[in-house]
Amino acid sequence: MSNDERVYIGSKPILAYVTAVITAFSRADSVNVMARGRAISSAVDVVEVTKRSFMRDMIVDDVSIGTEILGEEGNKRNVSTIAIKLSKP
Amino acid sequence: MSNDERVYIGSKPILAYVTAVITAFSRADSVNVMARGRAISSAVDVVEVTKRSFMRDMIVDDVSIGTEILGEEGNKRNVSTIAIKLSKP
Repeated sequence: MSNDERVYIGSKPILAYVTAVITAFSRADSVNVMARGRAISSAVDVVEVTKRSFMRDMIVDDVSIGTEILGEEGNKRNVSTIAIKLSKP
Repeated sequence: MSNDERVYIGSKPILAYVTAVITAFSRADSVNVMARGRAISSAVDVVEVTKRSFMRDMIVDDVSIGTEILGEEGNKRNVSTIAIKLSKP
């Protein structure tokens, strides 16, 4: 099995990403949920709904936050990021 | 110094909470930034702006996520939460 599945959270409904996480776990032992900006809240929702309703034994290994610089020279801006590492026992 | 300062993030401008975190560090060695629901993204922004612009040596000790149940019996709903533990060296 691969060890590096990633699910990027955007503006679709939460359940679309919950499905993506569950599918990713069929291919890998650990899944990283990644988001930027306003989608950070949704990323936490996706993890919590997945754990509560579908994969009770899923483990949140690590949550890390950071900043990414987006845009061209002269028009740069900082965007907050989150990466939530999940695994199954 | 107290060891348990908490800053709750709501819908004010980010810099209001950045100021609150910096002030809290004058009273304590560690500060917990807490948020629920849509304010989770703002909590990450507050931590990143504080670190990048005001307290370069601040350490993110731990980020934890969870679910809180809000509302009365018969009208309960789940809300995602985040707690970001910060300290200074």
